[in-house]
Amino acid sequence: MTNSVEEYVRQNEPRFLNELLELLRIPSVSTLPEHKQDVARAAQFVGDSLRKAGMENVEIITTQKHPLVYADWLHAPGKPTVLCYGHYDVQPPDPLELWESPPFEPSLRNGNIYARGACDDKGQMYMHVKAAEALRAAYGGKLPINLKFLIEGEEEVGGESISKYVQEQGAKLKADVALVSDTELFADGVPTLCVGLRGLIYLEIEATGPARDLHSGMYGGAAPNPVYGLIELLSKAKDAEGHIRIPDIYEDVVPPDPAEIESWKWLPFSEDEFLKHEVGSSALTGEPEQSVFARIWARPTFEVHGIAGGFTGTGAKTVIPAKATAKVSLRLVPKQHPERVLSAVKQWVKDNTPKGIQTEVRVLSAGPAISVNPNHPAIEVAAKAFSEMLGKPTVFIRSGGSIPIVGEFATHLGIPTVLMGFGLPDDGLHSPNEKYRISNYYTGIMTIAHFLDEYGRNSV
Amino acid sequence: MTNSVEEYVRQNEPRFLNELLELLRIPSVSTLPEHKQDVARAAQFVGDSLRKAGMENVEIITTQKHPLVYADWLHAPGKPTVLCYGHYDVQPPDPLELWESPPFEPSLRNGNIYARGACDDKGQMYMHVKAAEALRAAYGGKLPINLKFLIEGEEEVGGESISKYVQEQGAKLKADVALVSDTELFADGVPTLCVGLRGLIYLEIEATGPARDLHSGMYGGAAPNPVYGLIELLSKAKDAEGHIRIPDIYEDVVPPDPAEIESWKWLPFSEDEFLKHEVGSSALTGEPEQSVFARIWARPTFEVHGIAGGFTGTGAKTVIPAKATAKVSLRLVPKQHPERVLSAVKQWVKDNTPKGIQTEVRVLSAGPAISVNPNHPAIEVAAKAFSEMLGKPTVFIRSGGSIPIVGEFATHLGIPTVLMGFGLPDDGLHSPNEKYRISNYYTGIMTIAHFLDEYGRNSV
Repeated sequence: MTNSVEEYVRQNEPRFLNELLELLRIPSVSTLPEHKQDVARAAQFVGDSLRKAGMENVEIITTQKHPLVYADWLHAPGKPTVLCYGHYDVQPPDPLELWESPPFEPSLRNGNIYARGACDDKGQMYMHVKAAEALRAAYGGKLPINLKFLIEGEEEVGGESISKYVQEQGAKLKADVALVSDTELFADGVPTLCVGLRGLIYLEIEATGPARDLHSGMYGGAAPNPVYGLIELLSKAKDAEGHIRIPDIYEDVVPPDPAEIESWKWLPFSEDEFLKHEVGSSALTGEPEQSVFARIWARPTFEVHGIAGGFTGTGAKTVIPAKATAKVSLRLVPKQHPERVLSAVKQWVKDNTPKGIQTEVRVLSAGPAISVNPNHPAIEVAAKAFSEMLGKPTVFIRSGGSIPIVGEFATHLGIPTVLMGFGLPDDGLHSPNEKYRISNYYTGIMTIAHFLDEYGRNSV
Repeated sequence: MTNSVEEYVRQNEPRFLNELLELLRIPSVSTLPEHKQDVARAAQFVGDSLRKAGMENVEIITTQKHPLVYADWLHAPGKPTVLCYGHYDVQPPDPLELWESPPFEPSLRNGNIYARGACDDKGQMYMHVKAAEALRAAYGGKLPINLKFLIEGEEEVGGESISKYVQEQGAKLKADVALVSDTELFADGVPTLCVGLRGLIYLEIEATGPARDLHSGMYGGAAPNPVYGLIELLSKAKDAEGHIRIPDIYEDVVPPDPAEIESWKWLPFSEDEFLKHEVGSSALTGEPEQSVFARIWARPTFEVHGIAGGFTGTGAKTVIPAKATAKVSLRLVPKQHPERVLSAVKQWVKDNTPKGIQTEVRVLSAGPAISVNPNHPAIEVAAKAFSEMLGKPTVFIRSGGSIPIVGEFATHLGIPTVLMGFGLPDDGLHSPNEKYRISNYYTGIMTIAHFLDEYGRNSV
């Protein structure tokens, strides 16, 4: 059956590409109100594509913000059900002047599609649609598995609507496993399944000092400065080597199991290349006794993203501001409880707030880490299908980032997620000149179809 | 003679007030290009007023930015020459919504003039013009002293043009003493001369880390974060009690002499009131073994005004930025050399830059502290005249702020400055609802005329 799927994909490559280019031309920037109609248009496009691929019960679901697209095909009794997730919204394209071709006029160069959303996530989401179409063609109008699609238009702006929908529609969305293609291959040509995502706590810490902005000449030396108060506080979060010094913060952290650590050694990775070509700084930082993989995948972090409230314009202003706010995040690893970490952080802020300063901690989001059992049948099938398609053993990696919907699926639907993505590390998500390898688009369609086919077959 | 000056001022109060109100109606905001014509109009207004007051050789001097106004009256041979300085430009009025009456439609309420520039510095500068007019009336068309006026329109934007002019026009500006009214009374009704100003070094410290902005999920834990790098660095600038820890920074600092410290004890001051009504924080900070006056007047400071470059918008963004910049200032006290302090700071930055981060120090300005000898004849006369007019002993205070022109006069003209201001601590300079006490405007005119009269008389 695989052969006929492959054949169908090969024969339809030009059309599959053109359809994706059409979707990429819709500037569905979810954060910008002026693109609201474009986002709605992209939702319709996705709904139409699902209908043409043979999906049924296609719904464009209105939400508080941007529509959800639902569809299903449930005529394979006794076979498992896979919930395919993706998003059709994109990040704003700016800075526009850095794009070599306009972000919403896809350009084909060097074997890549250059466009905003080419990889994140239109190109990857659309592979699911085309995989369903190809399978259906190969099976003469039927599918070897039950499929549900839930595609959102708010991933880049927090995903509130889908979160609410998943909480409320447990019965409708019931499935055995979710499939998400919003990740990348560890390296070009290496079949990669992501089996761990860090959690994220995002905080604002507001410090207040004087009742109003003060002139630093008149009051400097006696008046507390909230910008410096935050600097004093936040400097105590980590030691010079990068160990977090907030009491109890490592309490629930468990080291990765030896097999996983062993497997990392087989990944094609050069610390020197990583430093030079990915990070681009003079040295890597962080806990020296941990490997780079452990630092970015398996260890919690404390990061300060910015401090607002003082003077940051051009030139000089000698202000002691009345307040200042820091944006702070902690990445969490499996077994850490967001609430326990939060209360440790709050206590630490309280204990370390300098004299003359008041602090308040506001929680913007808090979600746990996710780990997927690599021995889950769906993961095993996915690993095998991936490996067969790319001709190499599948590697299991983690990601240091967070995909909140995976947590929602685990919490509210009780299902694991197969994280099977075909991006490349240099695809430039959220950056100018975002791209997606054209051959990865086709390979992705075939691999996903192959996985769905095998997963249906294996569970008979 | 004083009596007839007083009489003239009393009789002309309504006209003196109306003239000032007219000047206050001109929105001469020097930093905003759309007000360039208004700034020019204010310069013309000042020139015309000087001419009407009997000054000669009135010039509106074109500069790179905003005009300087010069005038003189030099027909008192054998008498000293006073150089009167002030500025006719003002700060932007925003936030506009906090003004109870429009900033450029002066409103008289509670004995005050509410308007942008009422105190800083139009109201105070204009006292000099009216004092000259009143003296001339009292002396039948002559003056008991030689006067030069140099009024600028760039004080709120750095004062580059006047600095250049003073450097180049030493002969033209030759005088025995300068007179500046851009300071305040220590408290309402207390005759106050300012005899010390702190110097200021203003720096930008730029930290760079990764070659581009990174996703904190993907790289957090291994990639250096320039925002946190700055936090680590800057936190080492002071200990928890506020002592600066940059090596050698206190090298040249000398304590105020015992007589000055003794005199501070007689100032009407309550630390509790200062904390509650001026600073408005939960506690004062800074070196605990120093008095509040020493901390704000006689000790150097290290202040961080803001950090730019990370994410500070609404919501959450998990960025590790490629670079971040801190705005930092140090206030200097007499005997500290800006160049020595600068090189100590640069060395300290170099020695404390965290791993993986590069730092660069950019100097935006650097000027030394000023101290005026209270035994200088002009200061002694000013103190006596002030005291006679307000019926209380004159207090000598310092200001923690910096008035760069006073340093220029000292360096390039070799003259001290009488800092005789009539603002009040709550006049709200640079803030909404800036005000100036109407009675202080009249008292100021009389006091300045009295000082000029006595200074001419004493030096015969």
